[in-house]
Amino acid sequence: MKPINLKEKHELFDAKWHPHQIATVDDMQVILAKISGEFVWHAHENEDELFQVLKGTLYMQFRDRTERVNEGEIIVVPKGVEHCPSTKNGEEVHLLLFEKQHTAHTGNVEHEMTRKTYPKI
Amino acid sequence: MKPINLKEKHELFDAKWHPHQIATVDDMQVILAKISGEFVWHAHENEDELFQVLKGTLYMQFRDRTERVNEGEIIVVPKGVEHCPSTKNGEEVHLLLFEKQHTAHTGNVEHEMTRKTYPKI
Repeated sequence: MKPINLKEKHELFDAKWHPHQIATVDDMQVILAKISGEFVWHAHENEDELFQVLKGTLYMQFRDRTERVNEGEIIVVPKGVEHCPSTKNGEEVHLLLFEKQHTAHTGNVEHEMTRKTYPKI
Repeated sequence: MKPINLKEKHELFDAKWHPHQIATVDDMQVILAKISGEFVWHAHENEDELFQVLKGTLYMQFRDRTERVNEGEIIVVPKGVEHCPSTKNGEEVHLLLFEKQHTAHTGNVEHEMTRKTYPKI
């Protein structure tokens, strides 16, 4: 029941593509991530996933198109939809995500970028 | 699966203390609200509630203290905890909330400020 400053939390870690948990809301979690470059194509069979861009520009790739998501915007990826978050020109983009606490990082895909646990900060 | 611009959505309505739904994530909803002044003391018996301040300063009153929540900060009010959102000096504050779709506006309290439905925008 204390305010959580998103910028200050983002300053606590440098690793890209490694979500850090800052809060839970019922069975959901709020996680922060720094991303740069391209992630892994994957889908979450049973969970929606919300992305909020706090800094920079997210390019959310779907199989049929790419959506540009600017700072101050959100996008919800519905369950079952293949997606691949990315940034352009090596930009470091800061994200906040809302998703189920049990949502797997790369969904149905096992990859060297896959993180099994998210540090709590 | 389209980006949602939070500022543009906030410009679509003026009513204070009347949440508008902009997205759902599984059984949760993302709602926007404009607030000014003082709300109603209430608790949500079975649901946590996340507040994110997009503009202005939120003063979240609890029975034993008040937490100041600045722009760029979030606060989670756990289930069962009495709270009363407020602003100071008539400031209009813009919020994003994340909560279960069935969460009642004023929880266990019935009040003239209570909204039964949230428009989808």
